[in-house]
Amino acid sequence: MKAVRLHEYTKRPVVEDVPEPRVTAPLDVLVEIGGAGLCRTDLHIVEGQWARKSGVRLPYTIGHENAGWVREVGSAVTNVRPGDAVILHPLVTCGLCRACRGGDDVHCANARFPGIDSDGGMAELLLTSARSVVRLSQSLHPAEVAALADAGLTAYHAVRKAQPLLHPGTSVAVIGAGGLGHIGVQCLAAMTPAEIIVVDRSTAALKLAEQLGATHTVPADGRQVESVVELTGGRGAHVVLDFVGEGGAEREGVAMLRRAGSYFVIGYGGRVELPTIDIISTEINVIGNLVGSYNDLDELMALAARGRVRLHTRTYPMDAVGEAMDDLDGGRLQGRGILVPSRS
Amino acid sequence: MKAVRLHEYTKRPVVEDVPEPRVTAPLDVLVEIGGAGLCRTDLHIVEGQWARKSGVRLPYTIGHENAGWVREVGSAVTNVRPGDAVILHPLVTCGLCRACRGGDDVHCANARFPGIDSDGGMAELLLTSARSVVRLSQSLHPAEVAALADAGLTAYHAVRKAQPLLHPGTSVAVIGAGGLGHIGVQCLAAMTPAEIIVVDRSTAALKLAEQLGATHTVPADGRQVESVVELTGGRGAHVVLDFVGEGGAEREGVAMLRRAGSYFVIGYGGRVELPTIDIISTEINVIGNLVGSYNDLDELMALAARGRVRLHTRTYPMDAVGEAMDDLDGGRLQGRGILVPSRS
Amino acid sequence: MKAVRLHEYTKRPVVEDVPEPRVTAPLDVLVEIGGAGLCRTDLHIVEGQWARKSGVRLPYTIGHENAGWVREVGSAVTNVRPGDAVILHPLVTCGLCRACRGGDDVHCANARFPGIDSDGGMAELLLTSARSVVRLSQSLHPAEVAALADAGLTAYHAVRKAQPLLHPGTSVAVIGAGGLGHIGVQCLAAMTPAEIIVVDRSTAALKLAEQLGATHTVPADGRQVESVVELTGGRGAHVVLDFVGEGGAEREGVAMLRRAGSYFVIGYGGRVELPTIDIISTEINVIGNLVGSYNDLDELMALAARGRVRLHTRTYPMDAVGEAMDDLDGGRLQGRGILVPSRS
Amino acid sequence: MKAVRLHEYTKRPVVEDVPEPRVTAPLDVLVEIGGAGLCRTDLHIVEGQWARKSGVRLPYTIGHENAGWVREVGSAVTNVRPGDAVILHPLVTCGLCRACRGGDDVHCANARFPGIDSDGGMAELLLTSARSVVRLSQSLHPAEVAALADAGLTAYHAVRKAQPLLHPGTSVAVIGAGGLGHIGVQCLAAMTPAEIIVVDRSTAALKLAEQLGATHTVPADGRQVESVVELTGGRGAHVVLDFVGEGGAEREGVAMLRRAGSYFVIGYGGRVELPTIDIISTEINVIGNLVGSYNDLDELMALAARGRVRLHTRTYPMDAVGEAMDDLDGGRLQGRGILVPSRS
Repeated sequence: MKAVRLHEYTKRPVVEDVPEPRVTAPLDVLVEIGGAGLCRTDLHIVEGQWARKSGVRLPYTIGHENAGWVREVGSAVTNVRPGDAVILHPLVTCGLCRACRGGDDVHCANARFPGIDSDGGMAELLLTSARSVVRLSQSLHPAEVAALADAGLTAYHAVRKAQPLLHPGTSVAVIGAGGLGHIGVQCLAAMTPAEIIVVDRSTAALKLAEQLGATHTVPADGRQVESVVELTGGRGAHVVLDFVGEGGAEREGVAMLRRAGSYFVIGYGGRVELPTIDIISTEINVIGNLVGSYNDLDELMALAARGRVRLHTRTYPMDAVGEAMDDLDGGRLQGRGILVPSRS
Repeated sequence: MKAVRLHEYTKRPVVEDVPEPRVTAPLDVLVEIGGAGLCRTDLHIVEGQWARKSGVRLPYTIGHENAGWVREVGSAVTNVRPGDAVILHPLVTCGLCRACRGGDDVHCANARFPGIDSDGGMAELLLTSARSVVRLSQSLHPAEVAALADAGLTAYHAVRKAQPLLHPGTSVAVIGAGGLGHIGVQCLAAMTPAEIIVVDRSTAALKLAEQLGATHTVPADGRQVESVVELTGGRGAHVVLDFVGEGGAEREGVAMLRRAGSYFVIGYGGRVELPTIDIISTEINVIGNLVGSYNDLDELMALAARGRVRLHTRTYPMDAVGEAMDDLDGGRLQGRGILVPSRS
Repeated sequence: MKAVRLHEYTKRPVVEDVPEPRVTAPLDVLVEIGGAGLCRTDLHIVEGQWARKSGVRLPYTIGHENAGWVREVGSAVTNVRPGDAVILHPLVTCGLCRACRGGDDVHCANARFPGIDSDGGMAELLLTSARSVVRLSQSLHPAEVAALADAGLTAYHAVRKAQPLLHPGTSVAVIGAGGLGHIGVQCLAAMTPAEIIVVDRSTAALKLAEQLGATHTVPADGRQVESVVELTGGRGAHVVLDFVGEGGAEREGVAMLRRAGSYFVIGYGGRVELPTIDIISTEINVIGNLVGSYNDLDELMALAARGRVRLHTRTYPMDAVGEAMDDLDGGRLQGRGILVPSRS
Repeated sequence: MKAVRLHEYTKRPVVEDVPEPRVTAPLDVLVEIGGAGLCRTDLHIVEGQWARKSGVRLPYTIGHENAGWVREVGSAVTNVRPGDAVILHPLVTCGLCRACRGGDDVHCANARFPGIDSDGGMAELLLTSARSVVRLSQSLHPAEVAALADAGLTAYHAVRKAQPLLHPGTSVAVIGAGGLGHIGVQCLAAMTPAEIIVVDRSTAALKLAEQLGATHTVPADGRQVESVVELTGGRGAHVVLDFVGEGGAEREGVAMLRRAGSYFVIGYGGRVELPTIDIISTEINVIGNLVGSYNDLDELMALAARGRVRLHTRTYPMDAVGEAMDDLDGGRLQGRGILVPSRS
């Protein structure tokens, strides 16, 4: 089969023939890829930024946002059947550690991460586990939803955690309405009655946010903290979801909070720096957020199936991976790039 | 001032002149009534069904769903000012007992209930407490929202309690889409991503429910349990909100549940009768629901201000209270009847 | 190996030689039984009460409260190793359905129940799954804790669900301080600061409850509702844990509640019969309780390892299963009977 | 009456005669002080550190940890009667803002803080509000519990928030077992089954912690992070309660956490400085903590009444306030200093 293989860091991956993976273990699931999302992390992998952290041996197949159709399953698989359309949770988890047993599989003590530390989904086939496949509703096509597997799932997870804080009359500020943020806005609109205030530098992003359910939009023009405070009656937002996490957003995000508010860190790159006196005197919280669980992905697909979450995508044939990467790198890619194997 | 006074049980109340109430205590708030909801409970009061329970001395002024404008406030009132439009929480609570201190003021150990056990709001003026007034957004008019003060608040409260159970992919069955139920459907649509299945005998009620956000509607034709089970993939609903609570609904509601599901009792009149073995083997819950708290009402008004909850009303001049009661009693009243004092 | 086999309903099971089970699947775990609890359910199985429900084919090996040492594991097992002391969760679950993925494995869509519907643990060896084994701390011996696997786990699960309701200053009434109830009292004392009021017919049970942490004990002499109401300042208990669930306890339990209280059904046999008006006017809840999850069992073992939960047991050699059953049936068995294979 | 009055910053307060306060408003409560805790904050007030923040006009009476007996009540007071022993919540709150209505009165929009920004309790009498008095059980004496009103309440509040995270098998690290920390340890032991690891520089403090319920004690000798990680099986603590919040504790506290753990900031003085990548990759939380609510104080008194929380105190006659301050400042005061008016 054809696969997008990275042979050397800093050089573009190549499309080449590799042997097809095969089902051997009882929980194995072999998936025909229908779409594999292209993500900025893929560029970083190629640049070698993940080399030490992942410890992966080259060459290998990249692609960590995958969806497709089940071709074959192992003997113990009960949740999917050949022919089922599926999206893949980014991790392959053990199912035996306490975290897995408690629904918190993202903190699995024995997980691997296909596309990062082992062969991923930019290929005709991917071998994964029954624990990683979420069956899609008939209304969803793998190539449309593939990029929800990681980016969308991270946004959903943060919103899911924030939801209990967001009753009617509350306000949530969303910093950054890009790839993750614009999914976050849709999840907030679908799951909470809160006023949604979206902050972004891009006028286009703010326009899109408005269409997707933002109550107010605020340009990140240096006055965004004041704007959010004004829009919340001078008190600040109950929750801030920071999809940027660097470049000052991590200071502004905290400054947008009201007393007893919670600042959710999702984007990263910068630093949270706070005097402990400020943390206690206003009783605020800083909440870390990683990608979502398997059940989170299942729930996100339920939203997608009802049309409550939509992703803007542009498909490329798998052979055009280089062009897709150029477009992403050069800022010419609106929405998410999705690689589609030719046979699909 | 004019007020609707009940002089004798089983006889219609009369509109007559009574002295205006006056602000004397520091937390007193005097409200010019803009609208007082007429409720089936008012008919029951007149029939004498509440005589012993309330212990009220006749004559007195009825009306327990009230909204209007603040005319005057006591010396310690900080939350409203003369001229503010307000809706009144149905209870006047003490603010000192543990329930009040914990946000659960409906279980206040020292509450009174204007319109039931003391003078109510079918009058030009009502004297209440700062603890009972919720300020309205400028977009809301007292007469439009008055009936949310009790009926709407009960529906909201149940939905608020059910919300943590209603993540994407879940189903909630609503039994009864009448006065309370049609508010419940709107609250569910605004606050949860769950599939909403509405069960009612009336085709008109089901049509309205569809417009208000129901995902599916099911006629209460004797096959409603099977229909709900089918619509939930053979498993039953995660949550059932029963706004009827009698005439078989209390059996059917439980039968519509899936394993580990929760049956919320809101309507009443019938009996819940369940073998303990059935309760434990499926691990289901029966959840009681009373009217909502002050903060619940504040939140419901936030939904109303954003147009997420709307009430169908028909206004009558206060002098026409007899006609309004006749219409309600005779089934000729679509939506809620609202009495409006002439000066408003 | 030797095993306790049921050949015919209504006849005592016999100890006989059967082939040893073997590890074949990757998640298989073969356990040398160190102790198998004897439970009233075993008597009911022999009587044939479970015949239709379980659908098991005779002959088979009974025993559903099991603990021992791992002898051998399948290729994919990562949570235990040969030699580890373990207790077995009563269910073997799939790990793939939504309930399993969310930590709620008791509601697994594909579970089996060894000792009920397939070969159980009254034998020298039991073949189970990695998903069912909880590793024991070095301070715990299998024969001492085996009976916590089902009875104890049910009591723990109910307390775990009640705990968020039981802050300092609250009261919990425990109806029935027998096999499950006396574990429940210990869990309450270890996990909550609530006042624990224990109700039982037996003076000995009340004495034991006092030693285990009860704040007050109340004889079930017909005045128990009044006694609980008095002990709670005339208001009733915040939570009632009913380990009896029949013979009037299901009426008395509800009558012991305060406003907004919760009645937990654990024992069964009787019926909950309540007017819906009573459920809503006091806003009470009826909460069903099944056995606990795998993680619940892990937590219960953490309590046991620290000496916070202790079980009174009497061991019998496996060959003496008939005598043990006679003792249980005849009321001569104080504490739990534990069958121990001779080689252990 | 006699009162401890501050006339000039940096000079010791003096005991002098002032007019007795009188009940005038309906919710007024006049309390005969039985004990007023002396706190390091009182030294800071004298030094002028709070001058700008509180805006108080000199002279005024200090003392913000107060308990005593009700002498007289206003016309609307229903929760206490003359003669009742009471402890005073540190804030006088409005009861009308959303925070007060939701049980979160510490975030009251209109609170005042007697002893900080208005006359406090180092006096024979203090005029407060019915909203601030918690009635004491007969087993408690005001002078014994006065210092729980602020220091103890802060510790309790943090433990109450951490409790849902602390099921059996979890670990909580407590940094600092001094005035607040040793109350925190007692609350943890009374309310959770978690393993309690106490870190402190003082051997005496660690010994006391052990007596009060610590499972392990760890000297703050520079290796405390490693020690906590070792004691938690190499994974770190689920929860860290940091009662120090400066001098490196705020770095060490975060380093002691396991994945998905929560660091509770209670002490202050230092800074939390964390790369956002570290916050998200381990999904940790930083939780701010202020003093507890009125209901928190009520619950803490329930623990105290049952002997689950005890405070080490040393009483001084009110006239000896200078000596008490010298002892506190000079490190000669073991436990909390309590000032007692001579008539009590």
